Amino acid sequence: MIGAGNVAVNLAQALAKHVDVLQVYSRKLSNANFLAAKVDAEATDDLSRISEDADIYIISVKDDAISSVIDAVPDNGALWVHTSGSKPMELFAGKRRRYGVLYPMQSFSKQITVDFHDVPFFIEAAKESDVESIENLASQLSTKVFRADSELRRRLHVAAVFSCNFANHMWVLAHDVLQEAGLPFDVMLPLIRTTVDKLDKLSPAESQTGPAIRKDYNVMDAHMKMLHDEDVRRLYSILSESIIRYSEKTINDGKMS
Amino acid sequence: MIGAGNVAVNLAQALAKHVDVLQVYSRKLSNANFLAAKVDAEATDDLSRISEDADIYIISVKDDAISSVIDAVPDNGALWVHTSGSKPMELFAGKRRRYGVLYPMQSFSKQITVDFHDVPFFIEAAKESDVESIENLASQLSTKVFRADSELRRRLHVAAVFSCNFANHMWVLAHDVLQEAGLPFDVMLPLIRTTVDKLDKLSPAESQTGPAIRKDYNVMDAHMKMLHDEDVRRLYSILSESIIRYSEKTINDGKMS
Repeated sequence: MIGAGNVAVNLAQALAKHVDVLQVYSRKLSNANFLAAKVDAEATDDLSRISEDADIYIISVKDDAISSVIDAVPDNGALWVHTSGSKPMELFAGKRRRYGVLYPMQSFSKQITVDFHDVPFFIEAAKESDVESIENLASQLSTKVFRADSELRRRLHVAAVFSCNFANHMWVLAHDVLQEAGLPFDVMLPLIRTTVDKLDKLSPAESQTGPAIRKDYNVMDAHMKMLHDEDVRRLYSILSESIIRYSEKTINDGKMS
Repeated sequence: MIGAGNVAVNLAQALAKHVDVLQVYSRKLSNANFLAAKVDAEATDDLSRISEDADIYIISVKDDAISSVIDAVPDNGALWVHTSGSKPMELFAGKRRRYGVLYPMQSFSKQITVDFHDVPFFIEAAKESDVESIENLASQLSTKVFRADSELRRRLHVAAVFSCNFANHMWVLAHDVLQEAGLPFDVMLPLIRTTVDKLDKLSPAESQTGPAIRKDYNVMDAHMKMLHDEDVRRLYSILSESIIRYSEKTINDGKMS
Protein backbone atom coordinates (compact mmCIF):
# COMPACT_ATOMS: atom_id res chain seq x y z
CA MET A 1 0.00 0.00 0.00
CA ILE A 2 1.69 3.16 -1.20
CA GLY A 3 0.11 5.98 0.75
CA ALA A 4 -1.40 6.30 4.22
CA GLY A 5 -4.06 8.96 3.67
CA ASN A 6 -7.84 8.68 4.07
CA VAL A 7 -8.37 6.28 1.14
CA ALA A 8 -5.30 4.16 1.92
CA VAL A 9 -6.18 3.79 5.61
CA ASN A 10 -9.68 2.53 4.84
CA LEU A 11 -8.75 0.41 1.85
CA ALA A 12 -5.74 -1.27 3.47
CA GLN A 13 -7.72 -2.22 6.57
CA ALA A 14 -10.56 -3.67 4.48
CA LEU A 15 -8.11 -5.57 2.26
CA ALA A 16 -6.18 -6.91 5.25
CA LYS A 17 -9.20 -9.06 6.14
CA HIS A 18 -8.82 -10.93 2.84
CA VAL A 19 -5.21 -10.61 1.68
CA ASP A 20 -1.76 -10.14 3.17
CA VAL A 21 -0.74 -6.48 3.23
CA LEU A 22 3.07 -6.65 3.03
CA GLN A 23 4.16 -3.06 3.44
CA VAL A 24 2.87 0.48 3.90
CA TYR A 25 4.76 3.42 2.44
CA SER A 26 4.18 7.03 3.41
CA ARG A 27 6.36 10.14 3.07
CA LYS A 28 5.76 10.58 6.78
CA LEU A 29 7.07 7.58 8.72
CA SER A 30 4.58 8.22 11.55
CA ASN A 31 1.68 7.82 9.09
CA ALA A 32 3.24 4.68 7.60
CA ASN A 33 3.72 3.25 11.09
CA PHE A 34 0.13 4.09 12.09
CA LEU A 35 -1.40 2.19 9.18
CA ALA A 36 1.20 -0.61 9.13
CA ALA A 37 0.39 -1.41 12.77
CA LYS A 38 -3.31 -1.72 11.93
CA VAL A 39 -2.75 -4.16 9.04
CA ASP A 40 0.24 -6.03 10.50
CA ALA A 41 2.61 -4.83 7.76
CA GLU A 42 6.08 -3.35 7.47
CA ALA A 43 6.35 0.45 7.35
CA THR A 44 8.70 2.61 5.29
CA ASP A 45 9.10 6.26 4.29
CA ASP A 46 11.72 5.44 1.66
CA LEU A 47 10.53 4.74 -1.90
CA SER A 48 13.83 3.00 -2.69
CA ARG A 49 12.92 0.41 -0.04
CA ILE A 50 9.52 -0.54 -1.47
CA SER A 51 9.24 -4.34 -1.30
CA GLU A 52 9.68 -6.20 -4.57
CA ASP A 53 7.61 -9.17 -3.38
CA ALA A 54 4.04 -7.91 -3.71
CA ASP A 55 1.58 -9.24 -6.31
CA ILE A 56 -0.19 -5.88 -6.48
CA TYR A 57 0.95 -2.36 -5.67
CA ILE A 58 -1.80 0.09 -4.75
CA ILE A 59 -0.83 3.73 -5.16
CA SER A 60 -3.22 5.71 -3.01
CA VAL A 61 -1.60 9.12 -2.75
CA LYS A 62 -2.67 12.67 -3.67
CA ASP A 63 -3.51 12.77 -7.39
CA ASP A 64 -0.58 15.02 -8.25
CA ALA A 65 1.89 12.70 -6.51
CA ILE A 66 0.96 9.51 -8.40
CA SER A 67 3.37 10.10 -11.29
CA SER A 68 6.33 10.88 -9.06
CA VAL A 69 5.76 7.61 -7.19
CA ILE A 70 5.61 5.71 -10.49
CA ASP A 71 8.83 7.37 -11.63
CA ALA A 72 10.65 6.79 -8.35
CA VAL A 73 10.10 3.03 -8.27
CA PRO A 74 11.32 0.71 -11.06
CA ASP A 75 8.92 -1.72 -12.73
CA ASN A 76 9.09 -5.21 -11.26
CA GLY A 77 6.54 -6.86 -13.56
CA ALA A 78 3.85 -6.97 -10.86
CA LEU A 79 0.41 -5.32 -11.20
CA TRP A 80 0.31 -1.64 -10.32
CA VAL A 81 -2.90 0.31 -9.75
CA HIS A 82 -3.89 3.73 -8.50
CA THR A 83 -7.12 4.55 -6.67
CA SER A 84 -7.90 7.95 -8.18
CA GLY A 85 -11.26 8.86 -9.66
CA SER A 86 -9.70 11.68 -11.63
CA LYS A 87 -6.43 10.39 -13.05
CA PRO A 88 -6.20 8.27 -16.19
CA MET A 89 -4.77 4.76 -16.20
CA GLU A 90 -2.28 6.03 -18.78
CA LEU A 91 -0.13 7.58 -16.05
CA PHE A 92 1.45 4.12 -16.00
CA ALA A 93 1.86 3.78 -19.78
CA GLY A 94 5.45 3.01 -20.82
CA LYS A 95 6.49 2.81 -17.16
CA ARG A 96 4.80 -0.41 -16.12
CA ARG A 97 4.02 -3.56 -18.08
CA ARG A 98 0.91 -4.39 -16.03
CA TYR A 99 -1.27 -1.60 -14.68
CA GLY A 100 -4.80 -0.51 -13.94
CA VAL A 101 -7.14 1.42 -11.68
CA LEU A 102 -9.06 0.43 -8.55
CA TYR A 103 -11.33 3.38 -7.72
CA PRO A 104 -13.62 3.03 -4.70
CA MET A 105 -16.27 5.72 -5.10
CA GLN A 106 -16.70 6.78 -1.53
CA SER A 107 -15.80 9.66 0.76
CA PHE A 108 -13.16 8.62 3.24
CA SER A 109 -11.87 9.99 6.51
CA LYS A 110 -9.51 8.43 9.02
CA GLN A 111 -11.96 8.88 11.89
CA ILE A 112 -14.74 6.71 10.42
CA THR A 113 -14.17 3.19 9.14
CA VAL A 114 -16.09 2.66 5.91
CA ASP A 115 -18.02 -0.56 5.27
CA PHE A 116 -17.08 -1.35 1.68
CA HIS A 117 -19.93 -3.80 1.08
CA ASP A 118 -22.09 -1.37 -0.96
CA VAL A 119 -19.30 0.92 -2.12
CA PRO A 120 -19.17 0.92 -5.93
CA PHE A 121 -15.70 0.08 -7.26
CA PHE A 122 -14.86 1.23 -10.77
CA ILE A 123 -11.96 -0.68 -12.25
CA GLU A 124 -9.93 -1.00 -15.43
CA ALA A 125 -6.59 -2.44 -16.54
CA ALA A 126 -4.45 -2.45 -19.68
CA LYS A 127 -4.68 -6.26 -19.98
CA GLU A 128 -7.86 -8.32 -19.66
CA SER A 129 -6.18 -10.81 -17.27
CA ASP A 130 -5.33 -7.92 -14.96
CA VAL A 131 -8.90 -6.56 -15.14
CA GLU A 132 -9.95 -9.95 -13.78
CA SER A 133 -7.34 -9.83 -10.99
CA ILE A 134 -8.52 -6.39 -9.92
CA GLU A 135 -12.14 -7.50 -10.22
CA ASN A 136 -11.44 -10.48 -7.95
CA LEU A 137 -9.75 -8.29 -5.38
CA ALA A 138 -12.50 -5.64 -5.41
CA SER A 139 -15.23 -8.31 -5.29
CA GLN A 140 -13.88 -9.49 -1.95
CA LEU A 141 -14.71 -6.07 -0.53
CA SER A 142 -17.83 -5.00 -2.42
CA THR A 143 -20.85 -6.39 -4.27
CA LYS A 144 -20.76 -3.47 -6.70
CA VAL A 145 -17.77 -3.71 -9.03
CA PHE A 146 -18.08 -1.98 -12.41
CA ARG A 147 -15.64 -1.79 -15.29
CA ALA A 148 -15.12 1.84 -16.22
CA ASP A 149 -12.59 3.62 -18.38
CA SER A 150 -10.92 6.87 -17.36
CA GLU A 151 -13.54 9.03 -19.08
CA LEU A 152 -16.44 7.34 -17.25
CA ARG A 153 -14.51 7.53 -13.98
CA ARG A 154 -13.95 11.25 -14.41
CA ARG A 155 -17.68 11.78 -14.92
CA LEU A 156 -18.41 9.72 -11.83
CA HIS A 157 -16.00 11.82 -9.85
CA VAL A 158 -17.67 15.04 -10.97
CA ALA A 159 -21.03 13.58 -9.92
CA ALA A 160 -19.48 12.60 -6.57
CA VAL A 161 -18.16 16.11 -6.02
CA PHE A 162 -21.68 17.49 -6.44
CA SER A 163 -23.33 14.68 -4.43
CA CYS A 164 -20.95 14.64 -1.52
CA ASN A 165 -18.51 17.55 -1.34
CA PHE A 166 -20.93 20.27 -2.44
CA ALA A 167 -23.86 18.81 -0.48
CA ASN A 168 -21.61 18.72 2.59
CA HIS A 169 -20.70 22.35 2.00
CA MET A 170 -24.42 23.18 2.18
CA TRP A 171 -24.34 21.61 5.66
CA VAL A 172 -21.29 23.71 6.57
CA LEU A 173 -23.29 26.83 5.67
CA ALA A 174 -26.36 25.57 7.58
CA HIS A 175 -24.14 24.87 10.61
CA ASP A 176 -23.12 28.53 10.69
CA VAL A 177 -26.72 29.76 10.39
CA LEU A 178 -27.75 27.50 13.30
CA GLN A 179 -24.72 28.42 15.40
CA GLU A 180 -25.67 32.08 15.05
CA ALA A 181 -29.15 31.15 16.29
CA GLY A 182 -27.68 29.28 19.27
CA LEU A 183 -28.83 25.87 18.02
CA PRO A 184 -26.83 22.66 17.61
CA PHE A 185 -26.39 21.36 14.09
CA ASP A 186 -27.99 18.03 14.98
CA VAL A 187 -31.53 19.47 14.99
CA MET A 188 -31.05 19.35 11.22
CA LEU A 189 -30.14 15.66 10.94
CA PRO A 190 -33.70 14.20 10.72
CA LEU A 191 -34.47 16.61 7.89
CA ILE A 192 -31.27 15.69 6.08
CA ARG A 193 -31.91 11.95 6.52
CA THR A 194 -35.46 12.22 5.14
CA THR A 195 -34.16 14.19 2.20
CA VAL A 196 -31.73 11.34 1.45
CA ASP A 197 -34.33 8.61 2.13
CA LYS A 198 -36.57 10.16 -0.53
CA LEU A 199 -33.92 9.32 -3.12
CA ASP A 200 -34.71 5.61 -2.70
CA LYS A 201 -38.12 6.23 -4.27
CA LEU A 202 -37.94 9.51 -6.18
CA SER A 203 -35.41 11.08 -8.51
CA PRO A 204 -33.69 14.17 -7.03
CA ALA A 205 -35.71 16.39 -9.38
CA GLU A 206 -38.97 14.82 -8.24
CA SER A 207 -38.11 15.22 -4.58
CA GLN A 208 -37.06 18.87 -4.76
CA THR A 209 -38.95 21.07 -2.29
CA GLY A 210 -38.50 24.54 -0.78
CA PRO A 211 -39.12 28.19 -1.60
CA ALA A 212 -37.16 28.21 -4.87
CA ILE A 213 -39.05 25.37 -6.56
CA ARG A 214 -42.31 27.02 -5.40
CA LYS A 215 -41.01 30.35 -6.76
CA ASP A 216 -41.88 31.82 -3.38
CA TYR A 217 -39.95 35.07 -3.82
CA ASN A 218 -41.26 36.55 -0.55
CA VAL A 219 -39.62 33.79 1.46
CA MET A 220 -36.45 33.90 -0.62
CA ASP A 221 -36.13 37.68 -0.13
CA ALA A 222 -36.70 37.33 3.62
CA HIS A 223 -34.02 34.65 3.82
CA MET A 224 -31.55 36.76 1.86
CA LYS A 225 -32.02 39.63 4.32
CA MET A 226 -31.06 37.34 7.21
CA LEU A 227 -27.74 36.27 5.72
CA HIS A 228 -24.97 38.62 6.80
CA ASP A 229 -22.10 37.08 4.86
CA GLU A 230 -22.12 38.47 1.33
CA ASP A 231 -20.73 35.27 -0.23
CA VAL A 232 -23.34 33.13 1.49
CA ARG A 233 -26.08 35.52 0.33
CA ARG A 234 -24.76 35.27 -3.22
CA LEU A 235 -24.79 31.46 -2.98
CA TYR A 236 -28.40 31.51 -1.72
CA SER A 237 -29.40 33.58 -4.71
CA ILE A 238 -27.46 31.61 -7.33
CA LEU A 239 -28.63 28.22 -6.01
CA SER A 240 -32.26 29.38 -5.88
CA GLU A 241 -32.01 30.62 -9.47
CA SER A 242 -30.49 27.32 -10.52
CA ILE A 243 -33.33 25.34 -8.88
CA ILE A 244 -35.90 27.50 -10.68
CA ARG A 245 -34.07 27.16 -13.99
CA TYR A 246 -33.82 23.38 -13.63
CA SER A 247 -37.49 22.99 -12.77
CA GLU A 248 -38.44 25.01 -15.85
CA LYS A 249 -36.07 22.98 -18.02
CA THR A 250 -37.54 19.74 -16.70
CA ILE A 251 -41.10 20.91 -17.37
CA ASN A 252 -40.13 22.04 -20.88
CA ASP A 253 -38.43 18.70 -21.52
CA GLY A 254 -41.75 17.07 -20.61
CA LYS A 255 -40.06 14.76 -18.12
CA MET A 256 -42.53 15.56 -15.39
CA SER A 257 -46.28 16.10 -15.36
CA MET B 1 -56.95 20.99 9.01
CA ILE B 2 -56.96 23.93 6.66
CA GLY B 3 -54.90 22.88 3.65
CA ALA B 4 -54.25 19.58 1.91
CA GLY B 5 -50.72 20.10 0.58
CA ASN B 6 -47.54 18.17 1.44
CA VAL B 7 -47.31 19.36 5.06
CA ALA B 8 -51.05 19.05 5.72
CA VAL B 9 -51.28 15.52 4.28
CA ASN B 10 -48.45 14.25 6.49
CA LEU B 11 -49.40 16.19 9.62
CA ALA B 12 -53.12 15.35 9.48
CA GLN B 13 -52.44 11.64 9.09
CA ALA B 14 -49.97 11.63 11.99
CA LEU B 15 -52.37 13.62 14.17
CA ALA B 16 -55.31 11.38 13.30
CA LYS B 17 -53.64 8.57 15.27
CA HIS B 18 -53.93 10.65 18.45
CA VAL B 19 -56.76 13.15 18.00
CA ASP B 20 -60.03 13.48 16.09
CA VAL B 21 -59.54 15.34 12.81
CA LEU B 22 -62.96 16.94 12.24
CA GLN B 23 -62.63 18.51 8.82
CA VAL B 24 -60.22 19.11 5.95
CA TYR B 25 -60.43 22.27 3.87
CA SER B 26 -58.76 22.76 0.52
CA ARG B 27 -59.41 25.19 -2.34
CA LYS B 28 -59.57 22.10 -4.51
CA LEU B 29 -62.36 19.78 -3.35
CA SER B 30 -60.55 16.74 -4.80
CA ASN B 31 -57.54 17.44 -2.56
CA ALA B 32 -59.79 17.97 0.47
CA ASN B 33 -61.59 14.70 -0.29
CA PHE B 34 -58.30 12.82 -0.72
CA LEU B 35 -56.98 13.81 2.71
CA ALA B 36 -60.38 13.72 4.46
CA ALA B 37 -60.80 10.09 3.39
CA LYS B 38 -57.43 9.18 4.90
CA VAL B 39 -58.19 10.75 8.29
CA ASP B 40 -61.92 9.97 8.42
CA ALA B 41 -62.95 13.63 8.34
CA GLU B 42 -65.41 15.85 6.53
CA ALA B 43 -64.15 17.64 3.39
CA THR B 44 -64.93 21.15 2.18
CA ASP B 45 -63.66 23.65 -0.39
CA ASP B 46 -65.70 26.49 1.10
CA LEU B 47 -64.07 28.67 3.79
CA SER B 48 -67.52 29.86 4.92
CA ARG B 49 -68.32 26.26 5.88
CA ILE B 50 -65.31 25.70 8.14
CA SER B 51 -66.56 23.87 11.23
CA GLU B 52 -66.92 25.95 14.41
CA ASP B 53 -66.49 22.94 16.68
CA ALA B 54 -62.74 22.32 16.58
CA ASP B 55 -60.44 22.93 19.57
CA ILE B 56 -57.53 23.76 17.28
CA TYR B 57 -57.40 25.02 13.70
CA ILE B 58 -54.20 24.21 11.80
CA ILE B 59 -53.57 26.44 8.80
CA SER B 60 -51.17 24.55 6.56
CA VAL B 61 -51.36 26.38 3.25
CA LYS B 62 -48.83 28.20 1.07
CA ASP B 63 -47.17 30.97 3.12
CA ASP B 64 -48.72 33.75 1.07
CA ALA B 65 -52.23 32.34 1.52
CA ILE B 66 -52.18 32.19 5.35
CA SER B 67 -53.42 35.76 5.84
CA SER B 68 -56.28 35.42 3.39
CA VAL B 69 -57.48 32.29 5.23
CA ILE B 70 -57.32 34.15 8.56
CA ASP B 71 -59.28 37.05 7.08
CA ALA B 72 -61.91 34.83 5.44
CA VAL B 73 -62.88 32.98 8.61
CA PRO B 74 -64.21 34.80 11.72
CA ASP B 75 -62.62 34.20 15.13
CA ASN B 76 -64.45 31.63 17.23
CA GLY B 77 -62.28 31.83 20.34
CA ALA B 78 -60.53 28.50 19.58
CA LEU B 79 -56.77 28.10 19.17
CA TRP B 80 -55.46 28.87 15.68
CA VAL B 81 -51.98 27.96 14.48
CA HIS B 82 -50.08 27.97 11.24
CA THR B 83 -47.29 25.54 10.29
CA SER B 84 -44.93 27.89 8.45
CA GLY B 85 -41.24 28.16 9.19
CA SER B 86 -41.10 31.56 7.55
CA LYS B 87 -44.18 33.48 8.65
CA PRO B 88 -44.47 35.27 12.01
CA MET B 89 -47.10 34.36 14.58
CA GLU B 90 -48.21 37.99 14.36
CA LEU B 91 -50.17 37.25 11.17
CA PHE B 92 -52.94 36.37 13.67
CA ALA B 93 -52.55 39.51 15.83
CA GLY B 94 -55.82 41.46 16.24
CA LYS B 95 -57.66 38.78 14.25
CA ARG B 96 -57.65 35.91 16.74
CA ARG B 97 -57.72 35.89 20.54
CA ARG B 98 -55.73 32.64 20.81
CA TYR B 99 -53.03 31.85 18.29
CA GLY B 100 -49.63 30.32 17.75
CA VAL B 101 -47.32 28.35 15.49
CA LEU B 102 -46.73 24.61 15.09
CA TYR B 103 -43.75 24.26 12.73
CA PRO B 104 -42.55 20.75 11.94
CA MET B 105 -39.05 21.16 10.52
CA GLN B 106 -39.07 18.50 7.87
CA SER B 107 -39.28 18.16 4.10
CA PHE B 108 -42.63 16.73 3.07
CA SER B 109 -44.01 15.12 -0.03
CA LYS B 110 -47.30 13.35 -0.56
CA GLN B 111 -45.60 10.21 -1.92
CA ILE B 112 -43.62 9.42 1.24
CA THR B 113 -45.19 9.24 4.70
CA VAL B 114 -42.94 10.91 7.25
CA ASP B 115 -42.31 9.34 10.67
CA PHE B 116 -42.62 12.33 12.98
CA HIS B 117 -40.88 10.68 15.95
CA ASP B 118 -37.56 12.51 15.48
CA VAL B 119 -38.89 15.53 13.58
CA PRO B 120 -38.12 18.71 15.53
CA PHE B 121 -41.23 20.80 16.15
CA PHE B 122 -40.73 24.49 16.86
CA ILE B 123 -43.71 26.05 18.59
CA GLU B 124 -44.90 29.31 20.07
CA ALA B 125 -48.17 30.95 21.10
CA ALA B 126 -49.35 34.34 22.29
CA LYS B 127 -50.54 32.92 25.64
CA GLU B 128 -48.57 30.54 27.87
CA SER B 129 -51.56 28.21 28.30
CA ASP B 130 -51.75 27.86 24.53
CA VAL B 131 -48.01 27.16 24.28
CA GLU B 132 -48.69 24.24 26.58
CA SER B 133 -51.62 23.02 24.48
CA ILE B 134 -49.49 23.10 21.31
CA GLU B 135 -46.62 21.47 23.19
CA ASN B 136 -48.91 18.64 24.31
CA LEU B 137 -50.19 18.12 20.79
CA ALA B 138 -46.71 18.16 19.21
CA SER B 139 -45.33 15.88 21.95
CA GLN B 140 -47.78 13.18 20.88
CA LEU B 141 -46.04 13.11 17.50
CA SER B 142 -42.40 13.88 18.29
CA THR B 143 -39.83 13.63 21.07
CA LYS B 144 -38.21 16.88 19.93
CA VAL B 145 -40.43 19.87 20.67
CA PHE B 146 -38.71 23.23 21.09
CA ARG B 147 -40.15 26.65 21.90
CA ALA B 148 -38.99 29.12 19.26
CA ASP B 149 -40.06 32.63 18.37
CA SER B 150 -40.52 33.79 14.79
CA GLU B 151 -36.97 35.07 14.48
CA LEU B 152 -35.46 31.74 15.56
CA ARG B 153 -37.87 29.89 13.27
CA ARG B 154 -36.82 31.98 10.30
CA ARG B 155 -33.17 31.17 10.95
CA LEU B 156 -34.04 27.49 11.20
CA HIS B 157 -35.83 27.68 7.91
CA VAL B 158 -32.83 29.26 6.19
CA ALA B 159 -30.64 26.48 7.62
CA ALA B 160 -33.18 23.93 6.34
CA VAL B 161 -33.11 25.43 2.85
CA PHE B 162 -29.34 24.96 2.73
CA SER B 163 -29.42 21.52 4.39
CA CYS B 164 -32.23 20.04 2.37
CA ASN B 165 -33.30 22.04 -0.67
CA PHE B 166 -29.84 23.12 -1.80
CA ALA B 167 -28.25 19.75 -0.94
CA ASN B 168 -30.98 18.05 -2.98
CA HIS B 169 -30.24 20.38 -5.88
CA MET B 170 -26.64 19.13 -5.80
CA TRP B 171 -28.11 15.65 -6.34
CA VAL B 172 -30.21 16.96 -9.23
CA LEU B 173 -27.00 18.20 -10.86
CA ALA B 174 -25.20 14.90 -10.12
CA HIS B 175 -28.14 13.00 -11.62
CA ASP B 176 -27.62 14.85 -14.91
CA VAL B 177 -23.88 14.17 -14.96
CA LEU B 178 -24.51 10.45 -14.35
CA GLN B 179 -27.31 10.28 -16.89
CA GLU B 180 -24.97 11.71 -19.51
CA ALA B 181 -22.49 8.94 -18.60
CA GLY B 182 -25.21 6.29 -18.94
CA LEU B 183 -25.23 5.46 -15.23
CA PRO B 184 -28.17 5.25 -12.83
CA PHE B 185 -28.29 7.82 -10.02
CA ASP B 186 -28.37 5.08 -7.38
CA VAL B 187 -24.64 4.27 -7.76
CA MET B 188 -24.27 7.51 -5.83
CA LEU B 189 -26.46 6.58 -2.85
CA PRO B 190 -23.81 4.77 -0.71
CA LEU B 191 -21.53 7.79 -1.05
CA ILE B 192 -24.34 10.15 -0.10
CA ARG B 193 -25.35 8.01 2.91
CA THR B 194 -21.77 7.87 4.21
CA THR B 195 -21.48 11.61 3.81
CA VAL B 196 -24.58 12.01 6.00
CA ASP B 197 -23.48 9.32 8.50
CA LYS B 198 -20.27 11.25 9.09
CA LEU B 199 -22.36 14.08 10.53
CA ASP B 200 -23.22 11.91 13.55
CA LYS B 201 -19.58 12.11 14.63
CA LEU B 202 -18.03 15.10 12.89
CA SER B 203 -19.12 18.65 12.22
CA PRO B 204 -19.79 19.39 8.53
CA ALA B 205 -16.57 21.45 8.37
CA GLU B 206 -14.54 18.58 9.84
CA SER B 207 -16.00 16.05 7.40
CA GLN B 208 -15.47 18.14 4.24
CA THR B 209 -13.50 16.26 1.57
CA GLY B 210 -12.90 16.64 -2.17
CA PRO B 211 -10.70 18.57 -4.59
CA ALA B 212 -11.73 22.03 -3.35
CA ILE B 213 -10.75 21.52 0.30
CA ARG B 214 -7.47 19.98 -0.94
CA LYS B 215 -7.01 22.98 -3.25
CA ASP B 216 -6.44 20.46 -6.02
CA TYR B 217 -6.79 22.91 -8.91
CA ASN B 218 -5.78 20.33 -11.52
CA VAL B 219 -8.78 18.15 -10.66
CA MET B 220 -11.10 21.16 -10.41
CA ASP B 221 -10.00 22.43 -13.83
CA ALA B 222 -10.47 18.98 -15.38
CA HIS B 223 -13.98 18.76 -13.88
CA MET B 224 -14.91 22.20 -15.18
CA LYS B 225 -13.92 21.18 -18.69
CA MET B 226 -16.33 18.23 -18.55
CA LEU B 227 -19.37 20.32 -17.64
CA HIS B 228 -21.15 21.48 -20.77
CA ASP B 229 -23.88 23.55 -19.15
CA GLU B 230 -22.51 27.02 -18.47
CA ASP B 231 -24.65 27.55 -15.36
CA VAL B 232 -23.56 24.22 -13.89
CA ARG B 233 -19.92 25.09 -14.61
CA ARG B 234 -20.38 28.43 -12.87
CA LEU B 235 -21.90 26.65 -9.86
CA TYR B 236 -18.96 24.22 -9.73
CA SER B 237 -16.56 27.15 -9.65
CA ILE B 238 -18.47 29.25 -7.11
CA LEU B 239 -19.05 26.33 -4.75
CA SER B 240 -15.40 25.27 -4.93
CA GLU B 241 -14.31 28.83 -4.15
CA SER B 242 -16.72 28.93 -1.23
CA ILE B 243 -15.33 25.66 0.20
CA ILE B 244 -11.78 27.03 -0.05
CA ARG B 245 -12.78 30.34 1.53
CA TYR B 246 -14.57 28.57 4.41
CA SER B 247 -11.65 26.27 5.11
CA GLU B 248 -9.30 29.25 5.28
CA LYS B 249 -11.72 31.14 7.53
CA THR B 250 -11.95 28.12 9.84
CA ILE B 251 -8.17 27.78 10.02
CA ASN B 252 -7.79 31.51 10.68
CA ASP B 253 -10.45 31.34 13.41
CA GLY B 254 -8.32 28.66 15.05
CA LYS B 255 -11.32 26.32 15.30
CA MET B 256 -9.44 23.37 13.87
CA SER B 257 -5.92 22.10 14.36
